Amino acid sequence: MNRGTPLQIAILLYPGVTALDVVGPWEVLSRVPGAEVRFVGKEVGPVDTEGGGLLLGVTHELAEATAPDLVVVPGGSTTPGQMVDDEILNWLRQVHATTSWTASVCTGALILGAAGILKGQPATTHWYKMGVLRIMGAKPRPDERVVRSGKIVTAAGVSAGIDLALWLAGEIAGRERAEAIQLVIEYDPHPPFGAGHMTKATKEVRDLARTMMDETVPADQRRLVPKIAWRRFIDLIRTAR
Amino acid sequence: MNRGTPLQIAILLYPGVTALDVVGPWEVLSRVPGAEVRFVGKEVGPVDTEGGGLLLGVTHELAEATAPDLVVVPGGSTTPGQMVDDEILNWLRQVHATTSWTASVCTGALILGAAGILKGQPATTHWYKMGVLRIMGAKPRPDERVVRSGKIVTAAGVSAGIDLALWLAGEIAGRERAEAIQLVIEYDPHPPFGAGHMTKATKEVRDLARTMMDETVPADQRRLVPKIAWRRFIDLIRTAR
Repeated sequence: MNRGTPLQIAILLYPGVTALDVVGPWEVLSRVPGAEVRFVGKEVGPVDTEGGGLLLGVTHELAEATAPDLVVVPGGSTTPGQMVDDEILNWLRQVHATTSWTASVCTGALILGAAGILKGQPATTHWYKMGVLRIMGAKPRPDERVVRSGKIVTAAGVSAGIDLALWLAGEIAGRERAEAIQLVIEYDPHPPFGAGHMTKATKEVRDLARTMMDETVPADQRRLVPKIAWRRFIDLIRTAR
Repeated sequence: MNRGTPLQIAILLYPGVTALDVVGPWEVLSRVPGAEVRFVGKEVGPVDTEGGGLLLGVTHELAEATAPDLVVVPGGSTTPGQMVDDEILNWLRQVHATTSWTASVCTGALILGAAGILKGQPATTHWYKMGVLRIMGAKPRPDERVVRSGKIVTAAGVSAGIDLALWLAGEIAGRERAEAIQLVIEYDPHPPFGAGHMTKATKEVRDLARTMMDETVPADQRRLVPKIAWRRFIDLIRTAR
């Protein structure tokens, strides 16, 4: 990456996206020298995020970001909808052809997978959807927080986007700059509990977390998802094979 | 906190706010049972965040959130402007009178301080502005990531809002629920570098981070801030003493 040229970064947004999947990477990557970040979506304007109530803004339509150096695909409660959206998938395939880095956070990996980008690649995603990676022909790495495979970098659930972005910042701008970004955002984590990974949480906590994940998708969406989106997704996977 | 009653949470937004200061706590607190989060600001609509390009949405005017159980005040490049804004400060004083918890992330502590809320209290903020806490009569705790003093809880810079919110979730909803939230957002941090605190970074990294902090505020704002906002702030501090 030439220091003199801007670094074009496209972060995909869609209704139901998980806000921290987006904002963790943003807070790091926007501080890389020369970074120009575009929040890309199907329509310019606000999108409501997972959980409802926090609005993020799409600043550019997909057609306005056709050759980013780095694309970041976040996850969300509505990931299945994105996995069967040809406009999103075609855009991803198009930009992936010329990116320096293609990255995902959380279930964003499943959208990359639906676009055919993870076939044969080691990858990770949110623990709750790890099995779907295998269906897509990827090689799940449930114990790694950030998985790099060539120019593809996938992160585990939600907050892992911060670690992913710091790693990318180091690759793009060098270790000293990445460490300075870490210090600027004072990323010296001290979680008050140690339950952040499936191997570290108690059975009660794992069960409660699974219940919370099931409840994440609003009831009316949950009714629709299996019937329409997942079926279309399965057809898509079959055709691709 | 009664499980049956909703938990009203107000997160303050303003132009120039640091997005991760807002979204870290949101991603945790919005998962507390009964939580109803309002993004509160002077005007309903989008605000551009620190760095420029990421838009967050104000959903409620200040007057629509006058009795939150929990208020969260984030920091940002334009903190000094908020510290002399009587509408913001009066709202904070009003809500603080009846909150169960009053919290800040990063330089949000300086806004609490300007409202007179931190006088005599141990508190923390972003390392770059730690000295300002003392001017306000607070007791700086630069080595603690989350500082609790009665119902006031302050966090260190930017990413510390996640640790703060998990701690608060434990107090409000119990440890098991807080741990399940930690697992849902897979907060099992593995920073690729260890430079997240001033005591851990090299001199070169500390110097670069300081330069980056100076560059954060756009040039035209930097010209205005010392002349207008900081002077008014100092007057305010003097009057309060």
